[in-house]
Amino acid sequence: MAENIDLVMQGGTILTLDGELRVLEDQAIAIDKGRILDFFDPREKTWPARRTLDTSGCIVMPGLINAHTHLPMSYFRGLADDLPLQTWLHDFIWPLEAKMLSHAFISQAALHGAAEMIKNGITQIQDMYFNMPAVAEACSRAGLRAIIGEAVLDGKSEPEHATLGNKVLELRQRYADDPLLDFNLAPHSIYACSERTLRRCAEVAAQHGIRLHTHLSETRGEVEDCLREHGLKPVFYLQKLGILELPAVYAHAIWTDPDEIALMAASPASVAVCSDSNLKLASGILPLAQYLELGVNLCFATDGVASNNNLDLLAEMDLTAKLHKAVNNDPAFLPAVKTVQMATLDAARALGVEDKRGSLEIGKDADLCILELSGLESQPVYNPWSHVVYTLGAKQVRDVVIAGEIVLRDGQLTKVDEAELVETAKSWKQLMLKELGQWCS
Amino acid sequence: MAENIDLVMQGGTILTLDGELRVLEDQAIAIDKGRILDFFDPREKTWPARRTLDTSGCIVMPGLINAHTHLPMSYFRGLADDLPLQTWLHDFIWPLEAKMLSHAFISQAALHGAAEMIKNGITQIQDMYFNMPAVAEACSRAGLRAIIGEAVLDGKSEPEHATLGNKVLELRQRYADDPLLDFNLAPHSIYACSERTLRRCAEVAAQHGIRLHTHLSETRGEVEDCLREHGLKPVFYLQKLGILELPAVYAHAIWTDPDEIALMAASPASVAVCSDSNLKLASGILPLAQYLELGVNLCFATDGVASNNNLDLLAEMDLTAKLHKAVNNDPAFLPAVKTVQMATLDAARALGVEDKRGSLEIGKDADLCILELSGLESQPVYNPWSHVVYTLGAKQVRDVVIAGEIVLRDGQLTKVDEAELVETAKSWKQLMLKELGQWCS
Repeated sequence: MAENIDLVMQGGTILTLDGELRVLEDQAIAIDKGRILDFFDPREKTWPARRTLDTSGCIVMPGLINAHTHLPMSYFRGLADDLPLQTWLHDFIWPLEAKMLSHAFISQAALHGAAEMIKNGITQIQDMYFNMPAVAEACSRAGLRAIIGEAVLDGKSEPEHATLGNKVLELRQRYADDPLLDFNLAPHSIYACSERTLRRCAEVAAQHGIRLHTHLSETRGEVEDCLREHGLKPVFYLQKLGILELPAVYAHAIWTDPDEIALMAASPASVAVCSDSNLKLASGILPLAQYLELGVNLCFATDGVASNNNLDLLAEMDLTAKLHKAVNNDPAFLPAVKTVQMATLDAARALGVEDKRGSLEIGKDADLCILELSGLESQPVYNPWSHVVYTLGAKQVRDVVIAGEIVLRDGQLTKVDEAELVETAKSWKQLMLKELGQWCS
Repeated sequence: MAENIDLVMQGGTILTLDGELRVLEDQAIAIDKGRILDFFDPREKTWPARRTLDTSGCIVMPGLINAHTHLPMSYFRGLADDLPLQTWLHDFIWPLEAKMLSHAFISQAALHGAAEMIKNGITQIQDMYFNMPAVAEACSRAGLRAIIGEAVLDGKSEPEHATLGNKVLELRQRYADDPLLDFNLAPHSIYACSERTLRRCAEVAAQHGIRLHTHLSETRGEVEDCLREHGLKPVFYLQKLGILELPAVYAHAIWTDPDEIALMAASPASVAVCSDSNLKLASGILPLAQYLELGVNLCFATDGVASNNNLDLLAEMDLTAKLHKAVNNDPAFLPAVKTVQMATLDAARALGVEDKRGSLEIGKDADLCILELSGLESQPVYNPWSHVVYTLGAKQVRDVVIAGEIVLRDGQLTKVDEAELVETAKSWKQLMLKELGQWCS
């Protein structure tokens, strides 16, 4: 007799995101050892399983992928809103980071953020911050899949160029058996890294097959600075340094011009669209239509929670799809199917994992998001694609499966104690307020 | 011994929205006969009450006001998305309206919408559709406060001008004892009503003190048509017809120019900002900064669910505040406090009920929205104002009180059976699909 498999999920509307964009009704998914084993009709076949999940009346889709975030900033949520960017950074975020960034702060804030991602239907993130081991530990505990970037910045002195990337290699080895974690290099930006540092990042990345993750042209000012300092537009500057030819995710990429977009289209470059953050900080609106037209791969990201102030990728999808219809004066622009693709398969492509994730297909990792439709605000349902984008929200995320494990069940986190995380967050808040003085009501 | 009062709500952070924008911590609110009777410190005083509501750890604020919607369109949610406006209207919405708009359809769809408003923290709406009695009945059943507009359109023939407004007066009399309901006149728009009809609406409104509610300059095309047909920009045309001098809410008001905005600022005009709908239909982005600068009263609205596709006013607040920071290149533009005011007190002013609603003050109607902060995605909290706008969403709406009655408790509707509403919606969906053929997946 065959051994029981790990999990069978049964019922509902399955958005496979496969090559034919198949939508399966009332089928079941067999999952074992973290992967999708089979799709089957439960009236015709059974898979004996140790665990079953009834997904009738739900939409079952690949887990959402958040391609650019800063997990350990969770405790800065809403700390200083409606302020000019420079005031926000210089008077609040940077001084606080200078004072607060202990190992305990980072690992606890990252755990908070990782758990929040899961509650929002996100199964994989790409993070950029300091202290990769603390962030790795947090994601592992929450059960969140993550590519964790070593933020590279030139502060008073340049980083140790000889050892750059060593931590990435070391952590890759340490976590070789953990299916959830991977690591990459995250030079912060062209303005925060010297030319020498960026060249060194490119060398290390090329040598070891490490992917890159960086901020690009988030503000008009940094583009002007680049032109003045280097005589080149940012994307041309990246080309000169050898970065552009390497697989990379560029966060924001708002102030690029058609020449730069064409260059990116000819490179293994993806753009992480951060609409909420870009609007809230008044950074601008990226030329999304031009990127799509020239064939640049696009995906979504929340950015850090401090500039959002949530980690809700469904909200990013809704906002971006609507915003760019208006920007392009075309209600048919960026239709729901493409928007869902950007949040799943295109995002997997951006992270170089499209062979393993981003769609529900046999052999792929079992990373799934289950949206419930029982509330009246989710009814009626005519088209599941547009429903995901325009109607459903964080409220409807019922279950989340990552690597075959149910990490959210009926809205409840299964691997961490939410009440405890809330109490921890409140304690850190008190410490931060003590640092800053009681400036907020 | 004093009689028990109806309700005491105790604890949490109370955003009063009063003249001093006071924020009360750990206080209690005494409510009786639908009104706010007292604010008090429960450690120093008690009010014996028949019912108590523990709001510790919550934000307690005035109920949100949705100033422009079409309740009976609930069953059209997501029916035909990502389509050009004319296709959407001509091939889907209008043919369906022509076939489906029975009394049963309207009253059931309106009940669905009314219940959804409540789940989203909305305590009052201003509606525009057909069959006011059916909509009134639905709002009354759900316990939602509503100003219901008689939509006036010239179809093949002009409406009966002699009797225009009679239904409003009749329904005002019929529902004189119902504190939830009021009625007004809603000439659809300058393009859907003849000059004669609009003049008649102005006459009736002036004569009987009826407020007006209309669509204005939602598309560039209608502005061009007005210029061509009447030789005037829309707001100047409204002035000529005697509409502009009357208290009115103008929905959308996107394609107005500075002359028109100045004229509106000198009139009892308010604008209902419908950001989600305007982006999704690619109608455009209104000149919000210019309205505020010249002193036009602004409030928020979801529009009908068919062009949104939700009835989430917290999402409108978040979107609008962020969008206009980017449009104005200023992250400090439209700060959270002003955004919350627009959703409450300014909206009450738009509807002419600012003496009765829009803030939590002694003597005002007890219309309240309670947002829970227990989830980790709601923590930490530094500033309750920005928290309401940027962090919290429909998911955090825990309780809603309208006219002193708890109509939502722990996310559950108290006056209607949600599961029944869902089943009814599904039945109507099947009927509509039969009408249209199985065109959607």
